[in-house]
Amino acid sequence: MTLTAPTATIGLDIAAEVAAQLRVDSIRSSTSAGSGHPTSGMSAADLFAVLLTRHLRYDWDDPRSPENDHLILSKGHASPLLYSLFKAAGAISDDELMQGYRRFGQRLQGHPTPALPWVDVATGSLGQGLPDGVGIALAGKYLDKRPYRVWVLCGDSEMAEGSIWEALDKASYYQLANLVTMVDVNRLGQRGATDLGWDLDTYARRAEAFGARVLVVDGHDLNAIDNAMATAADPSGDRPTVILARTIKGRGFSEVEDSNDWHGKPFPPDMAERAIRELGGERHLTVRGPRPEPSSVDGSSPSSGPAARPVTTQPTEPATPARYDLGQKVPTRKAYGDALVALGAQNPRIVALDGEVSNSTYAFEFARAHPGRYFEMFIAEQQMVAAATGLAVRGYRPFASTFAAFLTRAYDFIRMGTVSGVDLCLVGSHAGVEIGPDGPSQMGLEDLAMMRALDGSTVLYPSDATSTVALTQAMAVLPGISYLRTTRGKYPVLYPDGESFPVGGSKTLRSSDQDEVTLVGAGVTLHACLAAADTLAGEGIRARVVDCYSVKPIDSGAIAAAAATTGRIVVAEDHRAEGGLGSAVKDSLVAGGRALPSLVHLAVRGMPGSGSSKEQLAWAGIDGDHIASAARHLVHG
Amino acid sequence: MTLTAPTATIGLDIAAEVAAQLRVDSIRSSTSAGSGHPTSGMSAADLFAVLLTRHLRYDWDDPRSPENDHLILSKGHASPLLYSLFKAAGAISDDELMQGYRRFGQRLQGHPTPALPWVDVATGSLGQGLPDGVGIALAGKYLDKRPYRVWVLCGDSEMAEGSIWEALDKASYYQLANLVTMVDVNRLGQRGATDLGWDLDTYARRAEAFGARVLVVDGHDLNAIDNAMATAADPSGDRPTVILARTIKGRGFSEVEDSNDWHGKPFPPDMAERAIRELGGERHLTVRGPRPEPSSVDGSSPSSGPAARPVTTQPTEPATPARYDLGQKVPTRKAYGDALVALGAQNPRIVALDGEVSNSTYAFEFARAHPGRYFEMFIAEQQMVAAATGLAVRGYRPFASTFAAFLTRAYDFIRMGTVSGVDLCLVGSHAGVEIGPDGPSQMGLEDLAMMRALDGSTVLYPSDATSTVALTQAMAVLPGISYLRTTRGKYPVLYPDGESFPVGGSKTLRSSDQDEVTLVGAGVTLHACLAAADTLAGEGIRARVVDCYSVKPIDSGAIAAAAATTGRIVVAEDHRAEGGLGSAVKDSLVAGGRALPSLVHLAVRGMPGSGSSKEQLAWAGIDGDHIASAARHLVHG
Repeated sequence: MTLTAPTATIGLDIAAEVAAQLRVDSIRSSTSAGSGHPTSGMSAADLFAVLLTRHLRYDWDDPRSPENDHLILSKGHASPLLYSLFKAAGAISDDELMQGYRRFGQRLQGHPTPALPWVDVATGSLGQGLPDGVGIALAGKYLDKRPYRVWVLCGDSEMAEGSIWEALDKASYYQLANLVTMVDVNRLGQRGATDLGWDLDTYARRAEAFGARVLVVDGHDLNAIDNAMATAADPSGDRPTVILARTIKGRGFSEVEDSNDWHGKPFPPDMAERAIRELGGERHLTVRGPRPEPSSVDGSSPSSGPAARPVTTQPTEPATPARYDLGQKVPTRKAYGDALVALGAQNPRIVALDGEVSNSTYAFEFARAHPGRYFEMFIAEQQMVAAATGLAVRGYRPFASTFAAFLTRAYDFIRMGTVSGVDLCLVGSHAGVEIGPDGPSQMGLEDLAMMRALDGSTVLYPSDATSTVALTQAMAVLPGISYLRTTRGKYPVLYPDGESFPVGGSKTLRSSDQDEVTLVGAGVTLHACLAAADTLAGEGIRARVVDCYSVKPIDSGAIAAAAATTGRIVVAEDHRAEGGLGSAVKDSLVAGGRALPSLVHLAVRGMPGSGSSKEQLAWAGIDGDHIASAARHLVHG
Repeated sequence: MTLTAPTATIGLDIAAEVAAQLRVDSIRSSTSAGSGHPTSGMSAADLFAVLLTRHLRYDWDDPRSPENDHLILSKGHASPLLYSLFKAAGAISDDELMQGYRRFGQRLQGHPTPALPWVDVATGSLGQGLPDGVGIALAGKYLDKRPYRVWVLCGDSEMAEGSIWEALDKASYYQLANLVTMVDVNRLGQRGATDLGWDLDTYARRAEAFGARVLVVDGHDLNAIDNAMATAADPSGDRPTVILARTIKGRGFSEVEDSNDWHGKPFPPDMAERAIRELGGERHLTVRGPRPEPSSVDGSSPSSGPAARPVTTQPTEPATPARYDLGQKVPTRKAYGDALVALGAQNPRIVALDGEVSNSTYAFEFARAHPGRYFEMFIAEQQMVAAATGLAVRGYRPFASTFAAFLTRAYDFIRMGTVSGVDLCLVGSHAGVEIGPDGPSQMGLEDLAMMRALDGSTVLYPSDATSTVALTQAMAVLPGISYLRTTRGKYPVLYPDGESFPVGGSKTLRSSDQDEVTLVGAGVTLHACLAAADTLAGEGIRARVVDCYSVKPIDSGAIAAAAATTGRIVVAEDHRAEGGLGSAVKDSLVAGGRALPSLVHLAVRGMPGSGSSKEQLAWAGIDGDHIASAARHLVHG
């Protein structure tokens, strides 16, 4: 049977059948896979049935339509429920559900990912689906200006994650009436009761205090759910809606209802059979709920929108990149701001976000030039990265910045960004001990290691304004997670305007046939390498100097050539000794498999305190004097 | 003038003088240093003056006294205020304040750290001081059972961090009436207004909804502050208290009051002079407020408690470590749980925390055996690490566990743990693609890189139950951050009971004089290396097998010997290619500076999906077949 709304709106009697089907299919799929979380979906099956049949505006034949509502399963472990919904919508077959779930090489993974065209973001690390949804809702309201709604199903366990409250805070600040959060309050987590159990009053007070319109329902009363969703979908308000649904885990199968023993366990076949019988047997309904309402946005056809994540590269204004004079002292963070302004003028899909430090990262320059495309995230780095993720889902190219140190706050969100396959440009300022008196809490010292370890990431660390501008431009079309590390202090411009800086390349700033040692730096240590080369030259030691502005991928060719020619390398970085530039150089040398040069790796070891930038670099042993000394020692033995 | 309470309780007239002194000294110290945040302290000076003179029970001559109240400056950038309070308490001299602040080699750093004996935890990454305070309050109420209070000063900007709400959620769940949060609502952040400005009603609703008793005051009305603190200090309730103080940034100097332009800037000398004049000039009061009330805890002398962070190693019960039979299949996560139970029996200062996955990490075994020392943190990994930090401040040895993947959520807290110098044992289960069908969101693939990059960290990755028990025991006395990585599946016990596993060591499981290649593994890949060695032996290739259970520090001697003897190394790891075991091996080889062996590094490249453990390991190219193939290729060339 196939039903389509709104030609004839589907009745709640049908929704009830769909709910039973979702439960049965959640059981069938997980039992067939031998793993999965059926009971976590059974509690929310009524919510999903009413949503699918009567409220979710979605063209299942065109998942990339820009008019579609968005549906995010924040409690990603309830994937059997989501996939059963896809079957009920006719998007996947029963065969795929039964034979593909959690199997190798299949797209119905244990937790949802955008390997499926109806999935916007990967979930499974709890407390991330809602923050991601905030990003999509921001795009809908402020950039796309389309009437789609964002529906997010959260579990009650994940309400303990602070990121949920960052999300609601921002959703109310930005008046995201297009965002509907459904909370499946089944009172049970993985290992027992949640801290609030069925205390819906407390959840309601919290969500209201964070600015949401709260609707509390019995999550198994289809009428109540329907009314709440109708209210939530009313776009006239200025508040996000939170539907708190009191539910029963394992609902529909009396043997497991409200039981603590059945989290994350498929039913054995005999139990599954009893459960399906109790639920009235298998069903194979296909239902199509409301279709998207065509919007009247200029220049966009409602039925054939752009692909979900286009990167529009056509310029709207002539590019006016910043230019700097050689020798002029400019902080790379300032050059980043300048470059971003120009990029924004070139490409209307560039957006920027910052964690309340835009006057330090220089993102404020973009905010001033392109205020409609700047989103202040205040001091909420997790939400900043999640919002960037949601904006990327809608085809925007986000640049998100804060101090490099504080990007560690969002590492789980960045990691999940790689699973989602989104293209995010992250920028960390105030790298290393160079920042001076503020002390170690403000120093990015682990950021290169953290970013290099991500699948498919790009890590860039320019030393001057010209290269910063070029690399910022390069980032705007890089796939996956790209990271730009900027420096606090002012350093001289080394490269003339127009010089090219390919990702994966390097620059050799000093070289001769008589080079006895190679000095490898990036960012602030590149300037120290140049100073060291001058010192060494005065002593008759010729030193090659290589600017490894591309830390990942690294320029293995240049490093191998330097190693072969000079036989000695000093690599200096304003970062911990593990996982950063030195590791990249060493990985490259070992992979090259040729004779190893003598190598000294200067990095930040021990815990810094306060002091001037000069004092800090000297203390860490990464200034020109220490680099020269290391090189001298290598050359003279 | 020196005043001491409670012999004669210090009056609010004196508190007013102290407040003026704190403002003047915040200005003097930051102007003298040429950097710092005077205005961020001036808003909270009245709060600190009343607290110091009339409510903070503290023996300034014995900062390690276990009876002392605790004071945490969560808004760490207001350090001039805190250091001015230390001067007012007579703990530091005016000379140190004027000549030491933010200077190289000095302890009055830009943001507070425990380099100062009156500072419990490093702050400066916002939103962490309160979560840390929850850990100290947990210790006070449930473990120390002493009447000390924990006073935390938060800025209003940091209320945007989700971690603040994780902290209040846990503070109310654990009924921490001994925790008082003061929020300095000066409405201005670094670059402009906060998202809630002076909307104290909304802050109040939020804090109340999260279970706090909320007191709203004019933060410059000493009487109101005094009354609120007296109420907050009343231990009869069961709720944490939040004092919301409406304040003015830069209060006391009319030129900068409520100005957006003076965040994080010291006043130039002429302005400082005008400010000090407006504030009535310099003062050099020394005031001692209430002393701690001796508690009647058994066996503890009120005046000479243990050092702040003792590691008690004396056993209270005979050790009964778990033992396993060779070849028995045991998940290392289970062995961790067993080991922790035994450790808990040996040492009463061992405590455990988990993020609502204790039945997966096996922390539940400790919870069952030692329920009084187990703290369920629900799904709030940031708060889990912060609570562990606070417990460590009070001399307990916390073991905090969750999935390895989800420790990325707490990276900023772990990083700050290194600045605080606390000893934390972190345990990540479900490492790598080995977990099978759950998919990439649940796979720890960046954890080794993240943990290795931390200053002074130790990273351990055992392959069997016996070594897991030994390394868990070793962790309990390691300084700094130590990390144990455990595996989901069952693998055979390789080592007999009683075998020793020194940190920094390795085990060579197969070796002969004819070894042509060395296979290096850890955790699950060690078993794959053994399988590969068997395959290779059948082909007449002798392979050495090294178990690098200690990833940091790594056994450089064993690796150098293997490289020298066999000339060929295959290293395989269930982790990304950057920053993990392979990096550690390569770093070691390069540091050795000898002839480089031929090396193949097998690691997880690309994005996995679902599948069985066997399928995943094969897909990633890190199973026995791939290791054997890589070795064969190296040998036959």
